[in-house]
Amino acid sequence: MTADTEPDTADTTVLLTGYEPFGEFSSNPASQLATRLDGLDRETYTIVGRELPVVFDRAAAELTAAIDEHDPELVCALGLAAGRHALSLERVGINLRDTSSAGVPDNDERRVVDDPVVADGPGAYFATLPLRAMKAAMRDAGVPTRLSTDAGTHLCNNLLYTARHVSETAATDHEFSVGFAHVPLSHEQAAVRDEGEPSMALETMQKGVLVGLEAACKQESHPDENARAGAE
Amino acid sequence: MTADTEPDTADTTVLLTGYEPFGEFSSNPASQLATRLDGLDRETYTIVGRELPVVFDRAAAELTAAIDEHDPELVCALGLAAGRHALSLERVGINLRDTSSAGVPDNDERRVVDDPVVADGPGAYFATLPLRAMKAAMRDAGVPTRLSTDAGTHLCNNLLYTARHVSETAATDHEFSVGFAHVPLSHEQAAVRDEGEPSMALETMQKGVLVGLEAACKQESHPDENARAGAE
Amino acid sequence: MTADTEPDTADTTVLLTGYEPFGEFSSNPASQLATRLDGLDRETYTIVGRELPVVFDRAAAELTAAIDEHDPELVCALGLAAGRHALSLERVGINLRDTSSAGVPDNDERRVVDDPVVADGPGAYFATLPLRAMKAAMRDAGVPTRLSTDAGTHLCNNLLYTARHVSETAATDHEFSVGFAHVPLSHEQAAVRDEGEPSMALETMQKGVLVGLEAACKQESHPDENARAGAE
Amino acid sequence: MTADTEPDTADTTVLLTGYEPFGEFSSNPASQLATRLDGLDRETYTIVGRELPVVFDRAAAELTAAIDEHDPELVCALGLAAGRHALSLERVGINLRDTSSAGVPDNDERRVVDDPVVADGPGAYFATLPLRAMKAAMRDAGVPTRLSTDAGTHLCNNLLYTARHVSETAATDHEFSVGFAHVPLSHEQAAVRDEGEPSMALETMQKGVLVGLEAACKQESHPDENARAGAE
Repeated sequence: MTADTEPDTADTTVLLTGYEPFGEFSSNPASQLATRLDGLDRETYTIVGRELPVVFDRAAAELTAAIDEHDPELVCALGLAAGRHALSLERVGINLRDTSSAGVPDNDERRVVDDPVVADGPGAYFATLPLRAMKAAMRDAGVPTRLSTDAGTHLCNNLLYTARHVSETAATDHEFSVGFAHVPLSHEQAAVRDEGEPSMALETMQKGVLVGLEAACKQESHPDENARAGAE
Repeated sequence: MTADTEPDTADTTVLLTGYEPFGEFSSNPASQLATRLDGLDRETYTIVGRELPVVFDRAAAELTAAIDEHDPELVCALGLAAGRHALSLERVGINLRDTSSAGVPDNDERRVVDDPVVADGPGAYFATLPLRAMKAAMRDAGVPTRLSTDAGTHLCNNLLYTARHVSETAATDHEFSVGFAHVPLSHEQAAVRDEGEPSMALETMQKGVLVGLEAACKQESHPDENARAGAE
Repeated sequence: MTADTEPDTADTTVLLTGYEPFGEFSSNPASQLATRLDGLDRETYTIVGRELPVVFDRAAAELTAAIDEHDPELVCALGLAAGRHALSLERVGINLRDTSSAGVPDNDERRVVDDPVVADGPGAYFATLPLRAMKAAMRDAGVPTRLSTDAGTHLCNNLLYTARHVSETAATDHEFSVGFAHVPLSHEQAAVRDEGEPSMALETMQKGVLVGLEAACKQESHPDENARAGAE
Repeated sequence: MTADTEPDTADTTVLLTGYEPFGEFSSNPASQLATRLDGLDRETYTIVGRELPVVFDRAAAELTAAIDEHDPELVCALGLAAGRHALSLERVGINLRDTSSAGVPDNDERRVVDDPVVADGPGAYFATLPLRAMKAAMRDAGVPTRLSTDAGTHLCNNLLYTARHVSETAATDHEFSVGFAHVPLSHEQAAVRDEGEPSMALETMQKGVLVGLEAACKQESHPDENARAGAE
């Protein structure tokens, strides 16, 4: 938000993706956030916001295309998890696709049970964003935030696993850190559903994402201080 | 929001109370709302906002004094219920004081078990604000809202019962309708506690209260359309 | 379970009712318990177990007929509350019928919204069984048990209110104490539903009911030690 | 339970482990089950039941020693997860140790944050017991059961990961399938805690374990029908 007189070559590019609506939901705070934050220029980072399709056969390809186009240092993906009460920074993506657990197919009506994300891929990848530093900053900003070790077995887990796999296997020349955050229902969604689920204001989610990304950018430029999210 | 040419003598005065912090909480969204909305002048109503002490021996007296001073047509009291996910419009106050169920005394360290609110008082009073109309309007505004038949046995229930008892027994000459709403934890409170509880943005609570009061004022001026909250 | 040589004139008769299946449930642990415990002869009490219809127009009449026929000293009614994790001893029945909150009509497809249980009846009645003594004994026996101030607004609340109203208004000559306990889903029900709800073994519910009734009978014979559940 | 006259060479040996009490718990249904089922001889399998210490430095060694001693075809480990409402068949163990998420150290007061279970080990291992067949059989028997992708980051996850690592890396000559099930609190534990947590009868847990193991043994002898739990 500052107008630097110098060229912003030191600026970090963040690719922020958010899944489109799916299943019974006519909106998705994940894509709302990615869309409204697209183009935002902060002191330490610039956001490229993109909506991704809730489709196994297309999400990874669109993500990779966006990485190739924008060469981000950070990739942060967002997805909706109805029932969660806090922003959930997912620590691990597992090599498993199973739409039966969520009870809803992807948006191409595809159902998969107990398939791998990547045949012969490793059992799991850990997120490489500095999740603990992000969580601390987000909580300090008043945003309920948790680390999670359960990204599910649907497209959210699929995206975290895939993005990490891409970064590990040189399917691209780019180097980037990867994280995934589940967001709760928005208050507006919960007001209509009335199923007793927790929810969060979209403004609060946005504050959490921005503060978390800022903490991530600071850590990236001081990697020695990096508290790793996982154990790899 | 309209510029009436007549003097606004027809304006409705709303007494909005909110309990002070108690127990383990250093803040309380209930009193935050009452304080920040004090003096607000809307098209159909004006708010007198007052914080009330979480003290059995003083809350009712301070409420009655505020009623005598401001002669409100509507009395809406707010209290915090950690664990709730929605604004809860309480339908009934029962003649029971029991601090053991919440596990926390009042702010004068007073503990009571199985005492009546009013000796020889009736078993319960129902709220007289038009709770269904309020709920519908609040949900339409995107605010998670529920009717509840469990105001607990602590000061919140105590206030709903007392306010209705005052209005029924002519302890005052004033005529007024009464309601009580439990509010969830604010996001800021939940971020610090990290106990897995739902929370709500203070701005969203505020929107809900304002929209709900507007619906209540409309109903008050058309009592025939009144959908009664209770069965009296 | 003892074989008294004396006539058991001192024996306490307990009327234990349980609601029949309703809504989406093909069984109901409440009626299962009432049926399997019918005729049980314990040292301090004998149980008359009766299933009651989930029908507003018939439940109260059948309850009153059973009271007239068996002249019980204690009336304990059971109902199912999916979502509860513990046996819930309900402290209060309110004068309100509202099937909309549970979202299911009665078994005659009758829907009522915001009607009184008894026109011109008091706002609420408190249970008169010694709930605290019962809870303590049930927990000591390893049965999760809670006091509750929310019996809902469906037939369960209706029965508690009605039974107390009958005992107060001399619709019968009999004198009896009244309580109502909500039971969780049975494990078998929860296994089929798979909706993430808590459940309890039917054997554990049964143990809780028997131990609770024993505690109630002891209190009844020593009324001075009675810790009243409510505030009347 | 049958007394075969033939030698039981076809019999399957199941190593059933259960963690000892830890943290605030003075008992643990996991070790209660392992202890009470030790030596049980069923038609299709025999159980060797062993309690394991909740100690990072010892649990794996004791497990490996028991495998070496008893040469089981199936290894099924049990651990307690307060807050769960169903038996949870864990699908995946991740290479992460973090006692901070549960907020409790191991029983040697050891706290670890973001360490790997096995340095340079793969990100995760999937369970190799036929979890879907087990779940179906357990539910049919009336036992609430779920698949889970979140074994946590404490000793339970550690054991699932370790047992699978041992089986993959020929730290032993033995071939065996591995599974891990989280059990809820027992009713007795929940009755004392009174923290609103779901619970399950120990008898029901036992039935679930026995039925699940029977389903697993049947699948093991017909591997072609095997519905794999994971994606490896």
